[in-house]
Amino acid sequence: MKTYINPNPEQWSELAKRKTVATADLNETVKAVFNDIQKNGSKAVKKYTSYFDGVSIENFEVTASEIENAVAQIPSELKNAIQIAADNISKFHSSQKEIPTKIETTSGVFCWRESRAIDTIGIYIPGGTAPLFSTVLMLAIPAKIAGCKNIILCSPPDKNGNINPAILYAAQLTGVTQMYKVGGIQAIAALTFGTDEIPKVSKIFGPGNQYVTAAKQYAQQLGLAIDMPAGPSELLVIADASCDPEFVASDLLSQAEHGGDSQVILVTNSEEIVAKVSVAIEKQKAVLPRQVTVEKALENSRALVFEDIQRAIEFSNFYAPEHLILAIENAEDKIEFIENAGSIFIGNYSCESAGDYASGTNHTLPTNGYAKNYSGVSLDSFVKKITIQKLTSQGIQNLGPTIEIMAAAEQLDAHKNAVSIRLKKLQNG
Amino acid sequence: MKTYINPNPEQWSELAKRKTVATADLNETVKAVFNDIQKNGSKAVKKYTSYFDGVSIENFEVTASEIENAVAQIPSELKNAIQIAADNISKFHSSQKEIPTKIETTSGVFCWRESRAIDTIGIYIPGGTAPLFSTVLMLAIPAKIAGCKNIILCSPPDKNGNINPAILYAAQLTGVTQMYKVGGIQAIAALTFGTDEIPKVSKIFGPGNQYVTAAKQYAQQLGLAIDMPAGPSELLVIADASCDPEFVASDLLSQAEHGGDSQVILVTNSEEIVAKVSVAIEKQKAVLPRQVTVEKALENSRALVFEDIQRAIEFSNFYAPEHLILAIENAEDKIEFIENAGSIFIGNYSCESAGDYASGTNHTLPTNGYAKNYSGVSLDSFVKKITIQKLTSQGIQNLGPTIEIMAAAEQLDAHKNAVSIRLKKLQNG
Repeated sequence: MKTYINPNPEQWSELAKRKTVATADLNETVKAVFNDIQKNGSKAVKKYTSYFDGVSIENFEVTASEIENAVAQIPSELKNAIQIAADNISKFHSSQKEIPTKIETTSGVFCWRESRAIDTIGIYIPGGTAPLFSTVLMLAIPAKIAGCKNIILCSPPDKNGNINPAILYAAQLTGVTQMYKVGGIQAIAALTFGTDEIPKVSKIFGPGNQYVTAAKQYAQQLGLAIDMPAGPSELLVIADASCDPEFVASDLLSQAEHGGDSQVILVTNSEEIVAKVSVAIEKQKAVLPRQVTVEKALENSRALVFEDIQRAIEFSNFYAPEHLILAIENAEDKIEFIENAGSIFIGNYSCESAGDYASGTNHTLPTNGYAKNYSGVSLDSFVKKITIQKLTSQGIQNLGPTIEIMAAAEQLDAHKNAVSIRLKKLQNG
Repeated sequence: MKTYINPNPEQWSELAKRKTVATADLNETVKAVFNDIQKNGSKAVKKYTSYFDGVSIENFEVTASEIENAVAQIPSELKNAIQIAADNISKFHSSQKEIPTKIETTSGVFCWRESRAIDTIGIYIPGGTAPLFSTVLMLAIPAKIAGCKNIILCSPPDKNGNINPAILYAAQLTGVTQMYKVGGIQAIAALTFGTDEIPKVSKIFGPGNQYVTAAKQYAQQLGLAIDMPAGPSELLVIADASCDPEFVASDLLSQAEHGGDSQVILVTNSEEIVAKVSVAIEKQKAVLPRQVTVEKALENSRALVFEDIQRAIEFSNFYAPEHLILAIENAEDKIEFIENAGSIFIGNYSCESAGDYASGTNHTLPTNGYAKNYSGVSLDSFVKKITIQKLTSQGIQNLGPTIEIMAAAEQLDAHKNAVSIRLKKLQNG
């Protein structure tokens, strides 16, 4: 890892840079696929599935017998593990339910808000060799808790036209209502417009490659909501003498194996820690199967040494990491200084993979500095909060004159009149 | 108002249609202005201010003496009214603060979340004859409660290079930190990139014309967050025999005066109510100064008569109105059936203008059917919620095997190893 000693703030922008992925050139492709699918529905979805996934699919919907087969294929050890993770995710996301509180802002004027589920949502799960069934848990469980009626999953078929059984298993366990063997731009377009097979959704969640990301952005322009802008995964570890360098190395490597474009950053108050972590990385790396990926990711990565941990935290806030591990003394007391992060992992035993799978927090988090302005996925992501107000006759009498004066000052006479007409009738009644 | 009796569900899509505003053709203009301002900063902002607003501005920032002048110009009656509204908005938004709750999902595994303010936000307030100072209250008050450090207001200068004093008054009252005399695409571009005068922000709030809307969408593509997609304002009233037709008429008119593209819809279970409301509209309209606007808006508007109120609510959910008035018997008992709405107004005395100005709820709400997938602005809009997890040594021992099994099944060995290395050391220690 390239190491920087006491980098001055002018260098911080450079040190906080992510590898940029150009998406602009995908826009034309995305628009063309969307237009075709809007016009030609399933027929076009089939065409692009043949073209991009190299497989011909007759019926996109996963059948009950396919799900049964998938369930039978999952070893019971994995089923148990998934159940434990699902229980934790369920507990933590259930705790995010908001209990409506009625506030009387002026005597006779009551305000509150209530949450309502987004009726129909889409979950996109990428294909590839590693089946990301954990992401199914992270998206379908809160959707179910929120009360979403239709939870539609799309995932690209493999060369034999199948979705990985672990994905189907997680989907049926968590209450996904429909599953479709479709991926890429064509999946996002189908969810955006709806086809005769695949329902139109109001919000799309889930990770994906740059095509899926560009397609989700385009869907957003067309009026759908999306979970958040996506980018390569990243981890920043703040470590001091209390850390275990082998643990830190293992965390940096676990992030690095996600992809060659992942980024890991070590920030510390001691050059010695950098040296020890580097040695541990070399040692642990040697036995990892994804070495090429890991090495590519480590090229984007850096170690920064600051005079003290407070300064290290300042840099972390500037960087706004997706995942932040605090492997420092009294880590819990430092949380209050963290301004920007997707999720924080406290102390030596809170490895990032705990949050990736099973602790209960959501692993769909803001990358690429978006932790400055976006939250990760939570129960909130699956609901709208509707405000409600009730004015009694006393309430409008108390607040009416205020509204009349303000409406008049904004030159909105009909707004004023809606109050005046009520006040007059109450006076005369 | 055009009236439809028992329209069948096939007609609903047509009846729920909003007037579409094309924005695609603005994209080139928006991009050109953004590129110029990114490259040339203040110089370019000045150029576009001359060109679009017809006024030459030397220093964009509003000075302390300009603010003092503005404060002196506001009549004390209006100051008092603004203060009452601000107090109510403050009370309701303060009640939206989330108190962190630590959940122990597995013995020794603790998860919780904490809110952090978005550091720097931008508030856009449109110009024009009517000064929308109420929107300043709706955006700056929750920003301040959330703890945003920099609250940057931009509003276009008039022909004399000034911002309306009521806007400046509301801004200084609510703790806006900087105010700039700049509007349109050039304001949004300046907030997106920052210039030597105007700071770069992380999120942009506030209404605007189609240029501002297109510019905000482009800012979002560039990585900024925005409050929500914007569209013309709208109101749906559900009324039964318990309503006061004159009140309903006054509410429909107050919405109609917002702009020719506003939409008002009356849904009821009785043709008689439509007739009475129509008579009241004609009578009240005659004395309104904005008659041309109101009449144009009424052209987009319709009355629907259904057999019963339950059916009326179904249509309302399908339409997903920004504002929904329930002028029906036992209105509060019907709230549970409302799935999609920005804000709900209960009973005969809860006029929309109460929420527009002073009840305490936010008036920045989802339009154009976005109430299906977006919430209105609330305290949540100004914070990120960071999840936090802490595993004790007991916690990782309890949950570790679960994580190992799941990571292995996703073929992420380094993720597994981050757990194994900890479990091994604990075993050996």
